[in-house]
Amino acid sequence: MAPTASGATEGTMDMPGMDMGSEEMSGMDMRPVDVTDAPVADSEARGNQPLEPTIAEDGTKEFELMAGVVRWNILPDVEIGAFAYNDQVSGPEIRVTQGDAVRIRFTNTLPEATSIHWHGLILPNEMDGASDVTQDPVEPGGTFVYEFTVEQAGTYFYHTHKSVDRQQALGLYGALISEPKVWATEKPFDQEYTLVLGEWKIDDQGQTLPAMNQAGAFPNFFTINGKSYPETETITATVGDRIRFRFVGSGQFIHPMHIHGGPFEIVETDGNLVPEGARLTKDTVLVGPGERYDVEWTALQPGRWLIHCHINDHVTNNGVEVEGGGGLTMIVEVTL
Amino acid sequence: MAPTASGATEGTMDMPGMDMGSEEMSGMDMRPVDVTDAPVADSEARGNQPLEPTIAEDGTKEFELMAGVVRWNILPDVEIGAFAYNDQVSGPEIRVTQGDAVRIRFTNTLPEATSIHWHGLILPNEMDGASDVTQDPVEPGGTFVYEFTVEQAGTYFYHTHKSVDRQQALGLYGALISEPKVWATEKPFDQEYTLVLGEWKIDDQGQTLPAMNQAGAFPNFFTINGKSYPETETITATVGDRIRFRFVGSGQFIHPMHIHGGPFEIVETDGNLVPEGARLTKDTVLVGPGERYDVEWTALQPGRWLIHCHINDHVTNNGVEVEGGGGLTMIVEVTL
Amino acid sequence: MAPTASGATEGTMDMPGMDMGSEEMSGMDMRPVDVTDAPVADSEARGNQPLEPTIAEDGTKEFELMAGVVRWNILPDVEIGAFAYNDQVSGPEIRVTQGDAVRIRFTNTLPEATSIHWHGLILPNEMDGASDVTQDPVEPGGTFVYEFTVEQAGTYFYHTHKSVDRQQALGLYGALISEPKVWATEKPFDQEYTLVLGEWKIDDQGQTLPAMNQAGAFPNFFTINGKSYPETETITATVGDRIRFRFVGSGQFIHPMHIHGGPFEIVETDGNLVPEGARLTKDTVLVGPGERYDVEWTALQPGRWLIHCHINDHVTNNGVEVEGGGGLTMIVEVTL
Repeated sequence: MAPTASGATEGTMDMPGMDMGSEEMSGMDMRPVDVTDAPVADSEARGNQPLEPTIAEDGTKEFELMAGVVRWNILPDVEIGAFAYNDQVSGPEIRVTQGDAVRIRFTNTLPEATSIHWHGLILPNEMDGASDVTQDPVEPGGTFVYEFTVEQAGTYFYHTHKSVDRQQALGLYGALISEPKVWATEKPFDQEYTLVLGEWKIDDQGQTLPAMNQAGAFPNFFTINGKSYPETETITATVGDRIRFRFVGSGQFIHPMHIHGGPFEIVETDGNLVPEGARLTKDTVLVGPGERYDVEWTALQPGRWLIHCHINDHVTNNGVEVEGGGGLTMIVEVTL
Repeated sequence: MAPTASGATEGTMDMPGMDMGSEEMSGMDMRPVDVTDAPVADSEARGNQPLEPTIAEDGTKEFELMAGVVRWNILPDVEIGAFAYNDQVSGPEIRVTQGDAVRIRFTNTLPEATSIHWHGLILPNEMDGASDVTQDPVEPGGTFVYEFTVEQAGTYFYHTHKSVDRQQALGLYGALISEPKVWATEKPFDQEYTLVLGEWKIDDQGQTLPAMNQAGAFPNFFTINGKSYPETETITATVGDRIRFRFVGSGQFIHPMHIHGGPFEIVETDGNLVPEGARLTKDTVLVGPGERYDVEWTALQPGRWLIHCHINDHVTNNGVEVEGGGGLTMIVEVTL
Repeated sequence: MAPTASGATEGTMDMPGMDMGSEEMSGMDMRPVDVTDAPVADSEARGNQPLEPTIAEDGTKEFELMAGVVRWNILPDVEIGAFAYNDQVSGPEIRVTQGDAVRIRFTNTLPEATSIHWHGLILPNEMDGASDVTQDPVEPGGTFVYEFTVEQAGTYFYHTHKSVDRQQALGLYGALISEPKVWATEKPFDQEYTLVLGEWKIDDQGQTLPAMNQAGAFPNFFTINGKSYPETETITATVGDRIRFRFVGSGQFIHPMHIHGGPFEIVETDGNLVPEGARLTKDTVLVGPGERYDVEWTALQPGRWLIHCHINDHVTNNGVEVEGGGGLTMIVEVTL
């Protein structure tokens, strides 16, 4: 008896453009993204940009999120078709202060139903965003208002919780940072940088398909905040600066993120402080899907120091190394 | 010179039903499971059921384990052919108290030789179960008696240690829990649940092949205690309950296990207590092959909270999402 | 628009001998290693052999490293074509004492440009070895002198930092151990063993291609210090001995390294001490690309105890189990 998935109503057996070999019976929805009518983002645009709230009378921070298809350049000559929040890959960074009440007005302009999960946050079940478990998915053209108080501090993220193997792989994720109240007076670092990790499967017609850990679906491009190296940001620092890097495991693959120029200290994971006596000093940390690692690194020597994934085909662009790297690579430029 | 494996006497070069592409020279034994004459388990049966011992005169706990082929439903309409202990996928849970002497009478009814390794336990070398290293494998129809004292407490597991890439992938594993003596009076949690993780490769004829991290062998179904969501168990709790989840990495893939509704505390790993000052609070933990993580989670809010792998194609059934998940998904239903 | 990699000048679109299925547009340089004119290493030779320095007048330890192609036996009947340092797979072990000034005279005899990165070490940027970022790559026939002081103690490694997805996968890595000064009088263990992990893709013509986490490029052989089990070393110990194992994640895959006969304690990672109160006792540790784990294990019982990767196809040779294992397997033989 050939298997079919129990109670399945979604998905498709037909996978245009894919040669799946022995995987041909899979129900994976590998249709390329249809970019007809999709807006084209500025080719220089970066993801993870701050999302400005409006402040309601009662102090609630109100954010607007819109899911839709966008044409987005991960490199000057490589355009993907992404599922994105606010036409941004990765989605805009929501930043709040611990204790803030937030209201997110969400609109779905995708051709399919979706919902938003607030990964790691403690909130009322009906705000958890798990389609078909805690809410009905938001149909195309529909809206939903998420409303909760952020009681925790730390690095979190939001992402689709509907048809996740397709929708999240196509870009529906973004960082959510909750700052401790005490940081209003002093932060324990000189600067910080959030790295939202993305994986992309682009076929030889330039179409975007969801990347997965399956034969025929492996990603061939990789991004930090929506850009592949050498288009990733270069950040600058001075010797002695302490920089917090927030790694967000927003994709489907584990990335051993490595830094040159000396090790970092792992200070938080999944938004939670690592107890002081338990902080590991490492130069490479496994960032798995769904995990976050906040590490702090002190600039010890001047020069150009790389941060990159240590799975070597993740630091290429479609298998090609460019200017000493690719994909999940970025540079910290340190001066005296 | 084409490679052959040094001294190889097992394995086959012929892989019916498989299109391995460039992997065609591999010696992987990818024959589908022959279910002719195999018993059919009750379609509602769950794995990881308690295995009752008999108590010998000297107090030794005696268990019976039998390895054989079984037809097993991971979903109402998906039947696999598994290599199983006591016709159960995953195998029955052996539960002892630290310090217990145990005797396991093992019978092999499989069509091939096998042995049982007691993963993580300190025991005499001749009881370690490593075929061709510490013992001769048990031939079809043969028996072996494993006998040792369980000096450790914690979450362990047992599994085949012969032709492991085939036999373990086909289901030969089960949990072994050793409770500390002090728990006789009080446990540090209100309830507990063991999650034995499984991966399955079912082809389009409905045949079961060993899942591996190789092109053409990727799993397309995933199970917790032998069932794929939505057939996984839903457990119930009351707000304030502290639940221990025991994750057992019994497969071939790393699973980032994530929980909704607030983070958990990692209290033990591989059967060993995490020092109190070193316990991480996380919402996602990488559970690798051979690893165990015991985490404790407090039910903070009423509602239906998901536990799931965060590799998104591992929460589908053959690539299809059903009722908000699939495969490595389960629900904790919390009431006030 | 079909993607090309931005600014790409390296790589090739042509992949002789490979059937990449839907990956056919990739720029991955999958050419098999050309072993014409390559020296043939002694078939019994092991990798990770001590590299003797010469001591300069000012006390600087001078090492010679040469990158080149070598024909190397990972098994008696399996010869690979590797990119190697000093004709050794893995490269020779460089061992220094914390505080040593070192000078490495490097010569490139490969048919392509390369450079050496000193993974994890704090050093001047121009000595970091990142091609096209901190230095021009060393062309075929060229030389480069790396010169720095090793201020840190611990387990490090060196590897190519040019065309890494090809060059490192083909063998350009080796261990670098820096001993704390205090060890001159006493070491905290009785013996130690370094395990440098390798992955190999050998096709059915016996050609070696770079192994990657991509369909068509998965490795089918695995090595510890350049040998597959049963050719890996068996080490001997006496009950009560404390052995430090240094796992070096020098490949492209995460390996859950497991030990039989009782758990180990994780004492260092990436060269850094784990704080005493934070040391985990485990029997399986995920060793990711770029990571190092130093674990200490006490021999508790006499017998033959296995150390192996728990991804089961990584303990086969081309899919075949031999003498109870394969690939990433080795034995500790413990006597009373």
